[in-house]
Amino acid sequence: MGDEKLRITLICYDEKEFLEMEIKSLKDYKKYCTDRKVVWLNIDGICDDVLKEMCEVFSFHPLVINYAKNKRQRPTIKDFDDHLMIVMKMLYMEDKYEKVYGEHLTILKKGNIVISIQEKIGDVFNDVRERIREGRGVVRKMGADYLVYSLMDSIVNTYFQILEKLGEEVVFLEDAMIIKPREELFRKVHRVKINLIYLRKSIWPLREILNYILREEVSSLGKETRPYMYDLYDKVVQLIDSLETYREMMTDTLNIYLTSISNKTNEIMKILTIISTIFIPLTFITGIYGMNFRYMPEIYWRWGYPFALLLMLTIAVIMLIFFRKKKWI
Amino acid sequence: MGDEKLRITLICYDEKEFLEMEIKSLKDYKKYCTDRKVVWLNIDGICDDVLKEMCEVFSFHPLVINYAKNKRQRPTIKDFDDHLMIVMKMLYMEDKYEKVYGEHLTILKKGNIVISIQEKIGDVFNDVRERIREGRGVVRKMGADYLVYSLMDSIVNTYFQILEKLGEEVVFLEDAMIIKPREELFRKVHRVKINLIYLRKSIWPLREILNYILREEVSSLGKETRPYMYDLYDKVVQLIDSLETYREMMTDTLNIYLTSISNKTNEIMKILTIISTIFIPLTFITGIYGMNFRYMPEIYWRWGYPFALLLMLTIAVIMLIFFRKKKWI
Amino acid sequence: MGDEKLRITLICYDEKEFLEMEIKSLKDYKKYCTDRKVVWLNIDGICDDVLKEMCEVFSFHPLVINYAKNKRQRPTIKDFDDHLMIVMKMLYMEDKYEKVYGEHLTILKKGNIVISIQEKIGDVFNDVRERIREGRGVVRKMGADYLVYSLMDSIVNTYFQILEKLGEEVVFLEDAMIIKPREELFRKVHRVKINLIYLRKSIWPLREILNYILREEVSSLGKETRPYMYDLYDKVVQLIDSLETYREMMTDTLNIYLTSISNKTNEIMKILTIISTIFIPLTFITGIYGMNFRYMPEIYWRWGYPFALLLMLTIAVIMLIFFRKKKWI
Amino acid sequence: MGDEKLRITLICYDEKEFLEMEIKSLKDYKKYCTDRKVVWLNIDGICDDVLKEMCEVFSFHPLVINYAKNKRQRPTIKDFDDHLMIVMKMLYMEDKYEKVYGEHLTILKKGNIVISIQEKIGDVFNDVRERIREGRGVVRKMGADYLVYSLMDSIVNTYFQILEKLGEEVVFLEDAMIIKPREELFRKVHRVKINLIYLRKSIWPLREILNYILREEVSSLGKETRPYMYDLYDKVVQLIDSLETYREMMTDTLNIYLTSISNKTNEIMKILTIISTIFIPLTFITGIYGMNFRYMPEIYWRWGYPFALLLMLTIAVIMLIFFRKKKWI
Amino acid sequence: MGDEKLRITLICYDEKEFLEMEIKSLKDYKKYCTDRKVVWLNIDGICDDVLKEMCEVFSFHPLVINYAKNKRQRPTIKDFDDHLMIVMKMLYMEDKYEKVYGEHLTILKKGNIVISIQEKIGDVFNDVRERIREGRGVVRKMGADYLVYSLMDSIVNTYFQILEKLGEEVVFLEDAMIIKPREELFRKVHRVKINLIYLRKSIWPLREILNYILREEVSSLGKETRPYMYDLYDKVVQLIDSLETYREMMTDTLNIYLTSISNKTNEIMKILTIISTIFIPLTFITGIYGMNFRYMPEIYWRWGYPFALLLMLTIAVIMLIFFRKKKWI
Repeated sequence: MGDEKLRITLICYDEKEFLEMEIKSLKDYKKYCTDRKVVWLNIDGICDDVLKEMCEVFSFHPLVINYAKNKRQRPTIKDFDDHLMIVMKMLYMEDKYEKVYGEHLTILKKGNIVISIQEKIGDVFNDVRERIREGRGVVRKMGADYLVYSLMDSIVNTYFQILEKLGEEVVFLEDAMIIKPREELFRKVHRVKINLIYLRKSIWPLREILNYILREEVSSLGKETRPYMYDLYDKVVQLIDSLETYREMMTDTLNIYLTSISNKTNEIMKILTIISTIFIPLTFITGIYGMNFRYMPEIYWRWGYPFALLLMLTIAVIMLIFFRKKKWI
Repeated sequence: MGDEKLRITLICYDEKEFLEMEIKSLKDYKKYCTDRKVVWLNIDGICDDVLKEMCEVFSFHPLVINYAKNKRQRPTIKDFDDHLMIVMKMLYMEDKYEKVYGEHLTILKKGNIVISIQEKIGDVFNDVRERIREGRGVVRKMGADYLVYSLMDSIVNTYFQILEKLGEEVVFLEDAMIIKPREELFRKVHRVKINLIYLRKSIWPLREILNYILREEVSSLGKETRPYMYDLYDKVVQLIDSLETYREMMTDTLNIYLTSISNKTNEIMKILTIISTIFIPLTFITGIYGMNFRYMPEIYWRWGYPFALLLMLTIAVIMLIFFRKKKWI
Repeated sequence: MGDEKLRITLICYDEKEFLEMEIKSLKDYKKYCTDRKVVWLNIDGICDDVLKEMCEVFSFHPLVINYAKNKRQRPTIKDFDDHLMIVMKMLYMEDKYEKVYGEHLTILKKGNIVISIQEKIGDVFNDVRERIREGRGVVRKMGADYLVYSLMDSIVNTYFQILEKLGEEVVFLEDAMIIKPREELFRKVHRVKINLIYLRKSIWPLREILNYILREEVSSLGKETRPYMYDLYDKVVQLIDSLETYREMMTDTLNIYLTSISNKTNEIMKILTIISTIFIPLTFITGIYGMNFRYMPEIYWRWGYPFALLLMLTIAVIMLIFFRKKKWI
Repeated sequence: MGDEKLRITLICYDEKEFLEMEIKSLKDYKKYCTDRKVVWLNIDGICDDVLKEMCEVFSFHPLVINYAKNKRQRPTIKDFDDHLMIVMKMLYMEDKYEKVYGEHLTILKKGNIVISIQEKIGDVFNDVRERIREGRGVVRKMGADYLVYSLMDSIVNTYFQILEKLGEEVVFLEDAMIIKPREELFRKVHRVKINLIYLRKSIWPLREILNYILREEVSSLGKETRPYMYDLYDKVVQLIDSLETYREMMTDTLNIYLTSISNKTNEIMKILTIISTIFIPLTFITGIYGMNFRYMPEIYWRWGYPFALLLMLTIAVIMLIFFRKKKWI
Repeated sequence: MGDEKLRITLICYDEKEFLEMEIKSLKDYKKYCTDRKVVWLNIDGICDDVLKEMCEVFSFHPLVINYAKNKRQRPTIKDFDDHLMIVMKMLYMEDKYEKVYGEHLTILKKGNIVISIQEKIGDVFNDVRERIREGRGVVRKMGADYLVYSLMDSIVNTYFQILEKLGEEVVFLEDAMIIKPREELFRKVHRVKINLIYLRKSIWPLREILNYILREEVSSLGKETRPYMYDLYDKVVQLIDSLETYREMMTDTLNIYLTSISNKTNEIMKILTIISTIFIPLTFITGIYGMNFRYMPEIYWRWGYPFALLLMLTIAVIMLIFFRKKKWI
C-alpha cells in the first residue's frame, strides 16, 4: 500500500502536560485525553471508512465527508453551528519541474478538538508541532481555536515562500527580457503565469474564508483569536496584492517580448532594404553594359569602364546619404 | 409524431412506499397519490395545452406558461408566494461536433408536488430516479424540497462533466500550442472559447438563483435543505472559477499562437535577408566583369578570375561574420 | 409641415367600453372620458405649446417639459409623488442602411391617465392598441399601470427583434470570418459593433429603471403589476446578457481577422523567401560564368556547361530539402 | 498687474429688488444688502488676503482657504455644518489648439450668501446673471440654494458643449479612419483621447458630489432644490455615459488604424512577391544563356533565342495563374 | 554598526513649553515629561529589544512587534481599543537611478503619546519638527491626534512630490514619443510604469486606512481631527486619480510606440518594394540582351541599343506612375 498508508496522530496538550502518539482508531482518543486538554487529531490519507467513523464519533454533518473527499473542492468554510469545517490547499513547489501543485486539506473543529485530514504523510505543520512540544510561543496557553489559527498560519506562510520564489523569477525574467529578449524566456514567463493562476485559485477563496470568520464572528472561534485572524487576513490581502502585481509584471514582460520581435523584424528589414536598394540599381547598370548589342558606343569608348564604375559609386553614395538622413545607418 | 411526443411520468413516494407510472393527464395524479407522499410529475415535451391545464390544476401564476415555453429564457427563479419556479438549462455535449447545446428545463414546486418540464424525452435525472426506486441515500426520507435540490444537483453534475471535457481540451490545446503552434489548433481554441461562453450563459445565472435561495430564505424550501443548497452554491462557484480560468488560459494560448506567427515571420525574414545580403553584392561583382567594355584591364589580367573569386569569398565571409555577431546564424 | 404635424390620439377604455378618437387639444379629453376609465393620450410630435398645456392641465412638475423635449436625454425614471415619468427610446433598424436609430419617448402616468409623447407618427404600440380594441389578453381588465407595462413591454420586444437581427449578423460574420477572412467583413464587424454600442446605451439605463421600480415599490404602480415588471426586468437582463456576448464575439471575430492577416503576410513571405533563396544563388553562378575574363579554365572545358547546370540543380535540390524540413512546402 | 487683478462683484436680489455693483472689500457687502435678499459675491482672482478676510468675515473653516487656493484640487464637496463648500472646474476649449483646459472654481454657501471664487475675470455665469437681472425663469423667486444649483448647472452645460465638440470630432475621425486611414488622423485620435481623459477628471468627481448632495440630504440645501439636483445628476450621468462611449469609439478607431497598417504591409508584400517571383526565375534563365561556355549547344541552335523567350513566357504565365488562384491579382 | 545605529528622540510639548532631546531608553521619557504634554518618541532603527521594551512599557498588543518588524508589511491600521497602530511607507526617489524605494514606518498612538518607528535615521518629518519648535501653525495647540495627522500628512506630501516628478516624466515621454518614437523612450516608459506600480502599492492601502478612520470613527482620534483627516483622504483620492491617469497615459504611449514600429516597417517595405519592382524587370531585359545566342536579330539591329534603353525607360515610368497612384511616392 506504500505511501497510501493511513496514519492517525494524536497530539493533546494543555499548559502543563503534553502527549503525542499514533493511534489505530479515532475512537481511541478518549482513552488518552482528559476533557480539558486541546486535542489535535491529524489524519494522513483520505479513506472512506475513517471519514465515516469520524462523522459518527464526533457527530459531524454528513456533508463533511463529501468536502473532505473531493480533492477538487476549492477552499471554503462551513459553520455547522457546533462544529466548524475549513477546507484549504497545502501548496508545494517542485524545484525541478518549476511547477506548483496542491494537497487537499480539511480542518475540523468541535469544542476543544481539532481534526486535520491530509492526502498523504508529510505536511507543513512541523513548526506548529515543535512549538507545542517545546511549549514555545503562546500555543500551549491558548485553546483549540488558536491551534486552528496556527495551522492556517503555517499554510499561509508556505504560500509566502512560494510566492517569493515566483516573485524572484518574475523580477529575473523582467530584467532578462529587457536586456536580451528571447523565446526561451517567453516560455518561462508563460509557465510562471500558469503558476500564478494556480496560486490565485488557492488564495482568493482564503480571503473569503477569513472575511467570513471576521464578519460573521463565528461562535466556535473565540474572541481572543480575532486579532490573530485579522493578522492572517492582512497577510492574505498582501499575498493577493503581490500576486496581482506579479501578474501585471508578467503581462508587461510579454509586451516587451512582443515589442522586441517587432523591433527585430524592423531591424532585419532595414538591412535587407539597404543592401537591396544599393545593389539592385548597380547590378542593373552592369546588366546594361553586359548586353551584346553590336552598336553600343559606350563599349568602344576609351573611358567607358572607369565612367561606369564612377556612375555606380555615385549611385551608392547617394543611397548611403539617403539612408543616413533616414537615420537607418 | 416521433420525438415531439408528449409523455407525463408520475413518481410518488414516501419513506415506505413508491409508485412510478405514466399518466395521460395531469389531473389523474390525484387518483394515485395520497396526500402525504412526495409527488414528482415529469413532462417530456413542451405543449401549450398541457401547460394551460397545469396552471389550472395547480393554480399557478399565468406567467409560468411564458417561462416554460420560451426556450430562450435564461435561467432564473420566481417565488410566487405559495409556489416556486426555477428555470435551468440541461447541457449536452455532442462528441462528434464538439459543440455544447442546451435543453430548456422548468422546475415547479408547490407543497409536496414537484413538476419538471423538459423539451424532449431523455434527461439527466436517471440517477435521481434510481435512488428513489432503490431507496438509496436520504432522498426517500426527505421532502419535496430535497427532490428539487436533487434535480438541480444532477444538472450541475453534468455541467462538471462537460467542463471537465472542455478542461482537458484546454490543457491539451495549451500544451500543443507551446510545443508546435499551428493554425488548426487556433481554430480549435476558438471553438472551445465559444463553448465556454455558452456554458457561462447557463452557469452565471445559476449562481444568482442559489444566491437568491440562500439570501431570501425562500419559504417553500425548508431549512433542512439549506446546507445542501450551500453545497450546490459552492459547486457552482467552483464551476465559474474553473470556467474563468479556462477562458484566461485560452486567451493566453491565443497569445502564444500570435507570438509564434510573429516569430516565424521573423525567422523567415532572417533567412531571406541572409541569402539576399550575401548573394546580391556577389552577383553585382559578376555583373561588373560581365560587362562588354573593350578597355577593361582586369579582364586581360592573368590572375583576374582567381582574384575576382577571392574578392567574392572575402565578401561572403565578412557577411557571415556579421550575421554570426548578430546571432542570426 | 408634413411629418412634423402634431397629432393627439385618445384611447379610453374599461372592461366593458372602449373609445378611440383624435382630439385637438389635451383639455378635450375630459369631455369624452368618465373618471373610471383608463385614459391613454398619445401625442405624436414634440411641440412646446402642447407640453406646456399638458403640464398645466395635469399639473405636472415643470422639469417634465425638459425631459420630454431633450431628445438626447438617456432613458430614466422620475417619481414626482403623484405622477410618474419614464423616458425610453424606441429603436428602429433600417434594413438598407443597416443602422439602428432611436426615437425619443416619454411616458407619463397620473392616476388613471397615461400620456405617451413621441417624436413623430408611427410607433411600436399597434399591438397594444389591437389588444385594447379587441379586448384580447388582460389589458382591458387591468388598470393604467398595466398599460404602462404594456407600452414598455412593446418597446422591449422591438429591442429583442433588433438584437436578434444583429445576432444573426454576428453569427454569420463569425462563421464567414473563420472560413474566409476579408476586409469587407471587417468593416461589417465594425458596423455591428457600433450598433451594439448604440443599443447598449438604450438598454442599460432600462435595467436601472426597472430596478428602481422593483426596489422602491413606486406607489403609482400597483402591486398587481409587480410580477409583470419582474418579467420585464428578466427580459432586459437577458437582452444585456446577449448583447455582451455578441460584443465579445465581435471582438473575437476581429482577432480572427487580425490573426488571418498575420498568417497571410507570413504565407506571402514564405513564397518570396523560397523563390528568392533558390534562384539568387543560381543566378550568382550564371553571373560567374558570364564574366568575360580571358583566363577562365572552366569556360574552355568540354563539360563546363553540363557541370554548371548540375551544380545549380544540386543547389536547388538542397534548398528544396531544407524548406521541406522546415515544413514550408 | 494686468489680468491678475482682483475684482469683487456683488449681486443681491429678491423677487422685487435687484442690485449689482463692484465692491472693494468683502466687508462692504453688508452696507448694501438687507438680510432677506440672496447675496452673491463673485471674486475674480485667487488672493491670500481676500481669502483670509473672507474666512474671518463669514467665519468659515480655515481649511476652506487651502481648497480655494489649491488649483490642483479635484472637484469635491465639504459640508461644514452651517456652511457648504463645492469645488469644481470651469472648462474651456481653445479652438485653435484643440485643447481643453480648466479653471479652478470654489463655491461657498452660508445661509442666504453665495460666494464664488474664480482664477480670473471671465466665466460661464453670464447666462445666470442675465436671468437674475431680467427676472427671467424662477431664479428671483427661489433662494440661495437655487443660485448654487444655477451656477453648477451653467458649468455642466459648458461640459456638454465641449463634449459635443469632441463628439463631433470622434464621429468625424471614426468615419475618416474607415474611409482612408492615415497617420495624421492617428495623432488627432490621440489628442482627442487626452482631452477625454482630462474631461473625465472633472466630471467623475462631480457625480460623487451630486451623489453626496442627494444621499446625505445636505441641510444647507433646501428640499425644493432636490428635483433640480436630481436633474443635474442625470445630466452628469449622461455626460459620463457619452464620454465612455467616445473613449470606446476612439479605441475602436485606433484598432481600425492598426488593422489598416497591417493590411497595407500585406498589400505591399504581395506586390513585391509577385514581381520578384515572376522575374527572378526569368532573370536566372537569361543568366544561363549569358554564360560564356565554349561548348553550349543551345547557343548555336537556330531556334535557341525564340525557344528561350517562349520558355520565359511560359514560366511567367504559370506564375500569373498561380497568383490568380491565390486571389492575389 | 554604522547606519544601523539606534537613536531615540523625544519631543514633548504643549502650547507653552517645548522639549527636544535624545534619550537612551524608552522608559526614560517619564522623567522629562509631565502628563499633560504631547509626547512624541521617534525611534530610528528597527531593533527587537527596543520593540519588546516598548510593548512592555506602554503595554501594547504583542502583534505590534510583528507589524513594526516586517518590512514587507503593506500599509494598514489596527485599532487595539486603547492604542492605535498605523503602518505606512515613506517613499524616496533617487534621482540618479530614477527608482522609487520605500522605508517601513510604524506610528503608534496611546493617549497623549505618539511613537514613530523608522528603518534608519533621516525622514520626512523635519517640517513637522520645525513647526513644533517654532510654534508655527496650530500643532502646538492641538493634541496627539493632530500630531499623528501631521506625520501622515508629511508622508502624503512626499508622495505628491514623487508623483509630480513621475508626472513630468510621463508628459515628457508622451510628447517625445509622438514627436520621435524610439526604443530608448520605450525603456523609460517601462521604468516609469514600474515606479507607478510601486507607488500604487503604497497609496491604495492608505485610502483604506483613511476610509477606516473616517467610517469607524476611531475613538483614539478625536472629533477635531476629522476635517483634517477628510482633507487627507481627499489628497489620497487625488493621488490615486493622477496615478491611474498616468498609468493610462503610459499605456497609450506604448501603443504609440508600437504603432510607430508598424508604420516604420511599412515605410521600409515601401522603399524596398519600389526599388525592387522598378529594377527587377529592367535587369531582366538587360539579361535578355546579355544572352549569347548566335541568332538574335535585335543584337545586330542598328537601333537595338537605343530601343532597349527606351523600353526600360518606359517600364520605369509606368511603374512610377503606378506607385504615384498608390500614393506611395
